[in-house]
Parts: sequence; C-alpha cells; structure tokens
Amino acid sequence: MKAMEWLGDRLKVLDQTKIPKKEAYLELSRYQDIASAIVGLKIRGAPAIGVAVGYGLALGALKIKAETQDDFRHELKAISHALAATRPTARNLPQALERMEKVAEKDEDVEQLKQALVAEAVKIHSEEAEATLKLSQLGAALIKDGSTVLTHCNTGALATAGYGTALGVIRQAHEQGKKLKVLATETRPLLQGARITAWELKEAKIPFTLITDSMAGYFISQGDIDCVIVGADRIALNGDTANKIGTYTLAVLAKEHGIPFYVAAPLTTIDPALASGAEIPIEQRSPDEVTHIQGVAIAPAGIEAANPAFDVTPHPLITAIITESGIIREPFGDGIKKILGSG
Amino acid sequence: MKAMEWLGDRLKVLDQTKIPKKEAYLELSRYQDIASAIVGLKIRGAPAIGVAVGYGLALGALKIKAETQDDFRHELKAISHALAATRPTARNLPQALERMEKVAEKDEDVEQLKQALVAEAVKIHSEEAEATLKLSQLGAALIKDGSTVLTHCNTGALATAGYGTALGVIRQAHEQGKKLKVLATETRPLLQGARITAWELKEAKIPFTLITDSMAGYFISQGDIDCVIVGADRIALNGDTANKIGTYTLAVLAKEHGIPFYVAAPLTTIDPALASGAEIPIEQRSPDEVTHIQGVAIAPAGIEAANPAFDVTPHPLITAIITESGIIREPFGDGIKKILGSG
Repeated sequence: MKAMEWLGDRLKVLDQTKIPKKEAYLELSRYQDIASAIVGLKIRGAPAIGVAVGYGLALGALKIKAETQDDFRHELKAISHALAATRPTARNLPQALERMEKVAEKDEDVEQLKQALVAEAVKIHSEEAEATLKLSQLGAALIKDGSTVLTHCNTGALATAGYGTALGVIRQAHEQGKKLKVLATETRPLLQGARITAWELKEAKIPFTLITDSMAGYFISQGDIDCVIVGADRIALNGDTANKIGTYTLAVLAKEHGIPFYVAAPLTTIDPALASGAEIPIEQRSPDEVTHIQGVAIAPAGIEAANPAFDVTPHPLITAIITESGIIREPFGDGIKKILGSG
Repeated sequence: MKAMEWLGDRLKVLDQTKIPKKEAYLELSRYQDIASAIVGLKIRGAPAIGVAVGYGLALGALKIKAETQDDFRHELKAISHALAATRPTARNLPQALERMEKVAEKDEDVEQLKQALVAEAVKIHSEEAEATLKLSQLGAALIKDGSTVLTHCNTGALATAGYGTALGVIRQAHEQGKKLKVLATETRPLLQGARITAWELKEAKIPFTLITDSMAGYFISQGDIDCVIVGADRIALNGDTANKIGTYTLAVLAKEHGIPFYVAAPLTTIDPALASGAEIPIEQRSPDEVTHIQGVAIAPAGIEAANPAFDVTPHPLITAIITESGIIREPFGDGIKKILGSG
C-alpha cells in the first residue's frame, strides 16, 4: 500500500477520509482535482500536502497550452496561487510551490520546463520520503525501550507521503525491537487519531490504546506516559511550532509533569520567513465539523461553534525538534539557523 | 420543564440521553428502573444521581412486604446496595443512601418507616435544589461583568435536579444582568457539553460557543477566557476534586495562564471519609463509548480503548470551591472542616 504514487500523467492517492472503513484510491490528473482533494482532506498532513501540490503544479503545467516562456510562467503562477490557497497553515505547501516555481525560471523551452517540473515534483516526493525515514531513524534514539508514548493526530505514512514524522519515529523504535506502547488521542474534530493513526498502528502491529483528547491529562498525571511526540505543520525560526489543535495542551501537560515533549518534522516544515509562532496563520474551519460527527448532529441546531484547526506551542515547552539533519534543542533559534544554513 | 418530579408513587424524569433530539420523559416506579436509568445515564450528574437514589430507595421501600422492622431493614439494605452499585465516583449517591438508611433506623412501624422514607427523599430533593440555587447565587459574585467563562461537561438543572452547579453560577450571573459569554466544551466521550449544556444555554438565551475539548488550550492561551468553572463528583477533605474526565487538564491550563479555576458543588459532594483525592474511585466505562459516537464506529474494529470517566484535580490548582454554605479557598482543609462542622 502506497499512500501516494506518481503514475506519469496522474497521481494515485489513498483517500484518507475513507480510512478505516475502506482503502479507496483516487487517480487525480488535473491540478484542480489535487486542490479539491486537499481542501476536502482526502490528502492531509503537512508533508503529504507539500508533495501533492508539487505534483499538482506539474499536472497543471502539462496542460498549459502557452508557447512562450512568459505566457507559460504566467499561467503557471495562477495555478500555483490556486494550489497555495487550499490550506493556510502547513509550511510544506508554499515551500514546495516555491521550489517548483524556481525550476520554471530556467531558460528552457516550454516542453523542457514541463518535464523539469514533473521531475522536480518526483524529486520533492522522494526527498521528502527519505527525509521522514531519516528523521524517524534519528528520533528513535529518543524513545526508550519499554516506554509508553503519547501521540496526537496522524503523522504516519499517509500524512507524509513517506515514512512518517512522529508516528515514523514510533515505528522506527518499534522496528528496532524496542518494546513500546502508544497512547493515541482520537483528535477531534476530524478524528485523525481514531481513524488513521489507529489504523496505521494496527497495521504495524504496535500495541496501542485509543483515548479521547480529554484523557491525556489523566494518563500523564498517573505517571503512565514517558514522552509525548507530535508532528508539525509550521515551525518558526525560534522553534515555535504550529500543529493540530490540542497539541499546545499536551505540551503544557508534559511540562507540568516533567516529561519530554518532542516535535518531529522534515526541514520543509520550517518557515525561514517567520521569527515566531505569533505570525503563523491558523486555519479556521467550518463549525459543522464540531457540531457534526461523520454527518450526524451531536449538538442542538443553529448554535455557534468554533473550529481553529491548529494551535501554536511556544518553543520553551518543546524538549527537542527532530529533523532529518539532526535533533535540535534549546536554543532553538541557533540550532535551526545552523541546520538551515548547512542544508 | 422539570428534570425530575416526584408523583407520589413514581418518579418522572427527563431522559438525558435523548437531549437535544427530543424531550422524552420516563416514569419510574420501581427501584430497579431508577438503578438502570442511572447505569444507562438517562439520569446523570452527581447531585441528580443523589436525589434519584433517594427516591429509588423510597420506591423500593414502598414495595417491601416484610412486616417486622428487622425484616424491613434487611430488605431495604439490599435495595440500598443495589442502588449504591450503579456508579462509583459521585459522592452524592452514597451520601443520599446513608441519609435514607438513618431514617429507617427510627423505632417506628413498617408503614410509618415507608412514609418517613418517602418524605426524606422529597426532603433531599428540595434541599438539594435549594442548595444549588444558593451556591449559584453565592458563586455569581465571582463572575465579572463582561467576562468569558469556560465550562466543561454538564452541570445545569438536568445534572442537579435543581438549579445547577457550575452552570447554575453562570445562569445566576446572567440573570443578574451581567454580560457573559460561555465557551462550552463538547466533553467526549459522551458529549454532555455538546448535547446538554448547549441545549440548556440555548434555552436560557446565554451567548455561547461550542468547542472540542482539545480547543480549550488554544482559547485560554489567546487570553480569551477569564475563568474556568466546573462541577464536581466527589471532593476530598483536602479539596482535591473528582470531576468529568478532562477537568484536570483545564485546571493545569488555567494555572499556566493565571486565570481562576472554580469548582461549584453542594456540600453533599464532599466526602468526609476521604483525606485526599488519591482515594477517590474512578469509574472505568466501556471502551465502546470511545470507539463509537452515537452508535457509529469512528475507529477500526477490535482495537483497545481506555475510558476513565473522571479525573482528579489536586486542590492547589483550585482557586475556590463554591458551596451553598460559602466559598472555600486555600487552606481548603480548614475551610471544609469549618463548613462541615457548622452544617
């Protein structure tokens, strides 16, 4: 099973909204299909979104009829804007588009540019897959044999179009033979933990227990959790990290109980333009996702509900950020600058 | 609408599992019906459970055929045990039964004892309703005009067979003309916040926004919340408080951000036999409540899920405990002793 596969002229993806009920694949051949798959969360997870928009821009480029470089680049820019507008928080999304657009700046004819864009999208994908495997291997060293690890949302193969970030670290530790137990939060409102993480952990035969988001404090206060590990959607230069709503609360609980709080993410998640997390745009999604679960109303009709999809964890609450180029600790600003500079 | 009404030979209750979809009433005439309504959460909320088992023991007593005091008391004890076994955490439940059993110790004939038990159940109900109104009035003084209040689970009229505890305080402040906004957590797994609190707040025309449990940290960290107020299922002599799962996390977040964390509960919630919260029994409920929402599976089949229904908030995280006899602050041990002694 591959979560995302390039078939030369289309992208095959596992529809994440259908997991765990069924493994349904989509074949997307237009950039608009990729955009709506991202908006509809059929493709989700910051690294996976980055890879997908790379392919999206390549698919869009293949269909451009313009013959001059200028016209081609002009149309490409519009497609890039459409893809960029799908979701605001994940850094990997604009990062991939910026990288693709740079390729289109080469002084080559339109046909060559199209092929170069396809090649670049494939390269982004393979590099991202490699990066998540590498960071998972590095991060596994932080997971002690016999420990119980709490994770939030979904950060495995599906979310990354590769090996995984937080869940990748857990998988690596498991594959190294460490005896682990995972507590997975269900992750309301969209239940990525209950649906996707539970499915991936079950497939990987890693022992785990599903809990509601509200139970994390109970288990941490009982001394049952050895560390918390999560992914990231955008990391500022000072280490402040945006991730799925509820992450900040887990970081505060980890601090209160003196257990490590780890963030695992490829370098593509770091935003070199942002000094701190205060500048990270937080996506506000439809209240229907809170008032309804899988289409069933759980609250009285016509009420107000809020739905921020992410929150920001300030860097002093983070023990370490695990990347493919190394594990960064305080002072995060220096560590991030050094790793980005050497990249 | 009355959440609980005594009709002389039966108890009429609003079925809380049907809210907000419909207002369905049950008429329960046997103690077994009361017991299963409590087990099935048709009657829930610590004070409401206390009132209900009072009526349950009275209904059981009315049907006892024994003619001697000893035989009567023997049968009554068995019924009391059955009612006591319905749920383990709420203190109000054994408290009401102990009070009822004391009445049965009077040297009166069986018929007189039966009538005395009915009268005592009615008295427990009216005293509890009065207590929650009184504590709501006292507590309202803590809620500042123009403030935004975060509450968890459901603690209104339905949960208390009276006026409410945490939600009663909010209602009183609102009725006093204070401009308030409420953030109500949905309270997974059983969604008492989304279903019942949202319904009660809507009925009372108090402005509110529904959030998932995982969003509390986001809104508190944004500075959007002025205080947190919750109810209680059992309070130990040192002030440690058991309440709905997720409460502890809210208390930790309130501490991290320096906002007040209030507990509102009638004195019947205080357990004079427990020195600290470590001794409070925590009910572990069916994993199905986590893996399914309103009958719909949200996770892969056959996985493990945990379902502790309550957690304990240590007293250093509590700003004040609001009771009908006054507002208690640190040192809680002294304050509780004083209030119980004067009762």
